[in-house]
Amino acid sequence: MNRITVLGQKIKKEKIEAFLIKGTENVSYLSHYWIEGEILLSSRDKFFITTSLFAEEAKSRLNGWQIVIQKDSLEKTISEICKKLRGKRVGFEASHFSFAEYERLRKIKEVEWVPFSGLIENQRAIKDVGELTCIEEALKVTRAAFAYLENELETGVTEKDISRKAIYFLRENADEEAFPPIVLFGERTSLPHGKPSQKKLEKGELVLLDLGARVGGYCSDLTRTIFLAGIKEKWRQIYHLIVKAQKEVIKTLKPGISCSDIDRMIREKIEGAGYGRNFIHGSGHGVGLAVHELPSIASRSKDILKAGMVFTLEPGIYLEGEGGVRVEEMIVVSEEGGRVLNG
Amino acid sequence: MNRITVLGQKIKKEKIEAFLIKGTENVSYLSHYWIEGEILLSSRDKFFITTSLFAEEAKSRLNGWQIVIQKDSLEKTISEICKKLRGKRVGFEASHFSFAEYERLRKIKEVEWVPFSGLIENQRAIKDVGELTCIEEALKVTRAAFAYLENELETGVTEKDISRKAIYFLRENADEEAFPPIVLFGERTSLPHGKPSQKKLEKGELVLLDLGARVGGYCSDLTRTIFLAGIKEKWRQIYHLIVKAQKEVIKTLKPGISCSDIDRMIREKIEGAGYGRNFIHGSGHGVGLAVHELPSIASRSKDILKAGMVFTLEPGIYLEGEGGVRVEEMIVVSEEGGRVLNG
Repeated sequence: MNRITVLGQKIKKEKIEAFLIKGTENVSYLSHYWIEGEILLSSRDKFFITTSLFAEEAKSRLNGWQIVIQKDSLEKTISEICKKLRGKRVGFEASHFSFAEYERLRKIKEVEWVPFSGLIENQRAIKDVGELTCIEEALKVTRAAFAYLENELETGVTEKDISRKAIYFLRENADEEAFPPIVLFGERTSLPHGKPSQKKLEKGELVLLDLGARVGGYCSDLTRTIFLAGIKEKWRQIYHLIVKAQKEVIKTLKPGISCSDIDRMIREKIEGAGYGRNFIHGSGHGVGLAVHELPSIASRSKDILKAGMVFTLEPGIYLEGEGGVRVEEMIVVSEEGGRVLNG
Repeated sequence: MNRITVLGQKIKKEKIEAFLIKGTENVSYLSHYWIEGEILLSSRDKFFITTSLFAEEAKSRLNGWQIVIQKDSLEKTISEICKKLRGKRVGFEASHFSFAEYERLRKIKEVEWVPFSGLIENQRAIKDVGELTCIEEALKVTRAAFAYLENELETGVTEKDISRKAIYFLRENADEEAFPPIVLFGERTSLPHGKPSQKKLEKGELVLLDLGARVGGYCSDLTRTIFLAGIKEKWRQIYHLIVKAQKEVIKTLKPGISCSDIDRMIREKIEGAGYGRNFIHGSGHGVGLAVHELPSIASRSKDILKAGMVFTLEPGIYLEGEGGVRVEEMIVVSEEGGRVLNG
């Protein structure tokens, strides 16, 4: 069933007459195209609202949509469209409109504004075959990037050098990088989201690469910790601990288990080895049109695993001032269980 | 006077006891550092709230701040801090908190939440010498990138090839690209914000490059339309029309004139030549920590030019299905008038 039909059924159930959508990936998900704009969906019509900057592209690429070119403010444009919906309840994406934007929407008195969160995000969490194909292609390019970059890891090269080469490779072989690559050497590997610097690679240092590609809108997200000659034995032990925990938990995955339980299982294994306070982030996150989306694999997550979900599992151990190890894989869950996506 | 002192005086005037800041560039502006987090500023304290992901970096780099590591939700963390402010009015950035986030803040009953917009954005619009130095350095790298890329414009090269080379160059010579480069060939130059594609360069085609670099957090933003051999005479005429309009308006700039007037002046010159409906965007925008910030040089802008403002002027003429020409310069205004920033 098509995406808009599925959403339409949800909207009907929520007893709203129309739904105003602004989240970048949500707009892209419903329009199957990546262009700046908002969507207003009612039971009869589907409007794509954009500015004159994108008018030519929208008209030629968005077939089946009523294209509305915003002349004045967004509110005035929406107010015009809403005249047909007088007195009706209209939903809006509460997580994607700022409070200031809501205050302006509220002045459109024709309709009653009703906040909703996560309606499309939950729908996006389950991937279809076409989406999975894009993700697998993005993974293939990311794996090729690791192979290429490993050869570039010579003493004296900087984190910024490798990061720049990563982007060049990803843009040559995929649409673009899914996010700015994380490239860290030595003790800087203890910063889970560190920014590449002018730090030069020295002998025996840890190397952490966290990369993703984008293909047809869809992202990949993988992390590798690479050991050069002369690495301390401690880091090998930490590496094996992480990979073992990851593998064991992947075996237990199936639809119906809670994502907070997945996080707990990985966390307990790392705590058992005495590194509990060194695993300073969640265990993973969904990946799709956004690099971070549902489900959230974290202690406070309320998500339940469903067939078709695609997410990362990325245990990491960070020793402040010394270094860190993280290994991130992407997993897909089906009725048969979980499997690592190879791409 | 330091940035926080200036903001502190504004806060006092607004009769609020504290101010909660979330806008990425606003947080960076006040902390002089680029890290994910929120700031809560009161007359006595300055708190930097971040997650465990950035704890090590925050503690080592943010001197003079009380670093608060968010354990549970942001709301719980803020609620803890707000206990000291019981019964007081606390401002929040209405344009940077989503409606859903506001609904969660509102549950913190200790304080009264008061929405504010543009408080720090207006302060950021006036640049000091240090900021101007970064912008000029970013401009220098961008101009060097144009010279380098012009040499790469051979028949058969794709828009994506040139865009990838642009990023590589900008990351080699500056911190990073300020935004994904716009590279368009031939009739695709009629898309003001088109995305680089696999389109190959052919003889006699228009080339549009819109690039920016980032240095020390600060952006540059320049556009060049390049004519290869064999270009149609019509495009040369359009080019000269645009550059002439731009130059004449720059001469009239001085503190005190309204930004909507600047837009009107450029627009009238283009309308006068019969291309009014082909100039489909605003005339410019402020540039600083963000590529698009205050002042807005557009017909509906309420901004007034002040000494120290840095902004683009970017007239463009777009003929649907044929091509387009845009020339974007960056301008700084002082008591002496406006001048093109050379970098």
